[in-house]
Amino acid sequence: VSLYRFDRERLLASAPGAFVCPRVVRFQDVDAAGIIFFARAFEYFHDAYVEFLEANGCALPDALRERSWAAPLRHAEADYLRPLRFGDRIEVALVAAHVEPSEVTIGYRVTREASEETAVVGQCVHTFIDPERFVRRAMPDEMRKLFESLAGSG
Amino acid sequence: VSLYRFDRERLLASAPGAFVCPRVVRFQDVDAAGIIFFARAFEYFHDAYVEFLEANGCALPDALRERSWAAPLRHAEADYLRPLRFGDRIEVALVAAHVEPSEVTIGYRVTREASEETAVVGQCVHTFIDPERFVRRAMPDEMRKLFESLAGSG
Amino acid sequence: VSLYRFDRERLLASAPGAFVCPRVVRFQDVDAAGIIFFARAFEYFHDAYVEFLEANGCALPDALRERSWAAPLRHAEADYLRPLRFGDRIEVALVAAHVEPSEVTIGYRVTREASEETAVVGQCVHTFIDPERFVRRAMPDEMRKLFESLAGSG
Amino acid sequence: VSLYRFDRERLLASAPGAFVCPRVVRFQDVDAAGIIFFARAFEYFHDAYVEFLEANGCALPDALRERSWAAPLRHAEADYLRPLRFGDRIEVALVAAHVEPSEVTIGYRVTREASEETAVVGQCVHTFIDPERFVRRAMPDEMRKLFESLAGSG
Repeated sequence: VSLYRFDRERLLASAPGAFVCPRVVRFQDVDAAGIIFFARAFEYFHDAYVEFLEANGCALPDALRERSWAAPLRHAEADYLRPLRFGDRIEVALVAAHVEPSEVTIGYRVTREASEETAVVGQCVHTFIDPERFVRRAMPDEMRKLFESLAGSG
Repeated sequence: VSLYRFDRERLLASAPGAFVCPRVVRFQDVDAAGIIFFARAFEYFHDAYVEFLEANGCALPDALRERSWAAPLRHAEADYLRPLRFGDRIEVALVAAHVEPSEVTIGYRVTREASEETAVVGQCVHTFIDPERFVRRAMPDEMRKLFESLAGSG
Repeated sequence: VSLYRFDRERLLASAPGAFVCPRVVRFQDVDAAGIIFFARAFEYFHDAYVEFLEANGCALPDALRERSWAAPLRHAEADYLRPLRFGDRIEVALVAAHVEPSEVTIGYRVTREASEETAVVGQCVHTFIDPERFVRRAMPDEMRKLFESLAGSG
Repeated sequence: VSLYRFDRERLLASAPGAFVCPRVVRFQDVDAAGIIFFARAFEYFHDAYVEFLEANGCALPDALRERSWAAPLRHAEADYLRPLRFGDRIEVALVAAHVEPSEVTIGYRVTREASEETAVVGQCVHTFIDPERFVRRAMPDEMRKLFESLAGSG
């Protein structure tokens, strides 16, 4: 299955996200250079993804407990436009989704709450698997519908 | 079972540890105040514990895979004597152990490699459990022997 | 200055905290044994402390930017009573404070939102310093008042 | 300045890295799905980068202390080929570099020590800045030479 990636411009230009998580940059999220450690942005993306699933009746903890599906990352990337510092109030939004039978690419954008300036954009490609055998499987229907609802949002 | 804690003085005064892990304070281990984020010290302790088990034939990954035992934390504490900064070369030592039938208290000391000054001391109390039922069980014999070898080291 | 520690029983028996932060155990907060990695509890404590300061007009990011004060940890400890797992809804409360001229001991309790069962109790001792010289200084008056308001809450 | 990215195939096919860091997947590096949390791979990349600079006389802690240069991330990406689990012995290698006047793209590959199977490939683009003013500056000469030595290694 070929990897689907959004253009960075597409993520920058997308409308306000269909799902937005406000948060604050934590004391321990910065590094020795005084700005957010770049890998934390991927945690912000994933935390928003978990909240999105939870808010829409497809809670990831339930899926893992029932061993019905898992969706490990195949690819992840981020572009850093402006530095974030401890205490910055930000919004992490899911701004786009591209759905394949067993895969989804989700686009993210992190903006400062006050200025609405974009600080980070990124995307994560999840592959759906059967967690018992760790082999690719079709995405559950309710997940497909959920991601498709997001697809038109950007 | 009553909780066993070492005196802080005992940990400070103990001989060089029987098991010592050199490491360097990472870029992302510091916080917005520019010194090591205090919770990272507990990661240093636990990483040294995992290395100690591995080096002595009681690898934790094997125990978890075979579901023979687990040893979650009942208590953890640390005293911070000197700040650590990005790039500091340190040694994390297991300096003491107190063994009960189903519990072990392990004492740790973190020193700067160059000056041998103590930066942090601490201790963690692990309770042995059957991971299937999450109930207390006796410590495996080889674990008891291993921790007892450490007991006299401090 | 001698270290002040609350009795664990005192923290367990304290009234509902004066300041409570709801949160959810994150996907990446658990470890290879499937329960919360113990050091994460200290991050929960500290995140609640940062929120408490922010909510009461003593924002830590401002203090660090102005280099007026810093309050690194002198001591931290936690007792783990029940395991927490990915997706668990919890409340992290500041339940007690003991104030000294240049030091504060803050007591924390983590409960499950649904059952109100206590999962973790702990405490952190912060020493106030002049961040330029890294030497002990008196706590600012507004901080003292703030922590004293918490002292009677437990 | 346009962003330089390596082809994923280029990173997969590159010769053994010029600089290789052995490490073990930590207990707290896995997530609730039992495999390495994807954002940890970026920490592995960055830790190897810090070690590479240190080993070649361009220590990042010194640069930050002297405020001579900083090199925050402009872009980061990773492709996950095989899952990694707690205890897995891996090698994190710098396998390629592309040098621009004020920017460097570094390619990484993570392999299992035993099988030499690739688990993750990725790349990070660093922009050199003057840390006082947070504006782009030319890369120091010794850094250029260092990265060029890596360029031919892949």
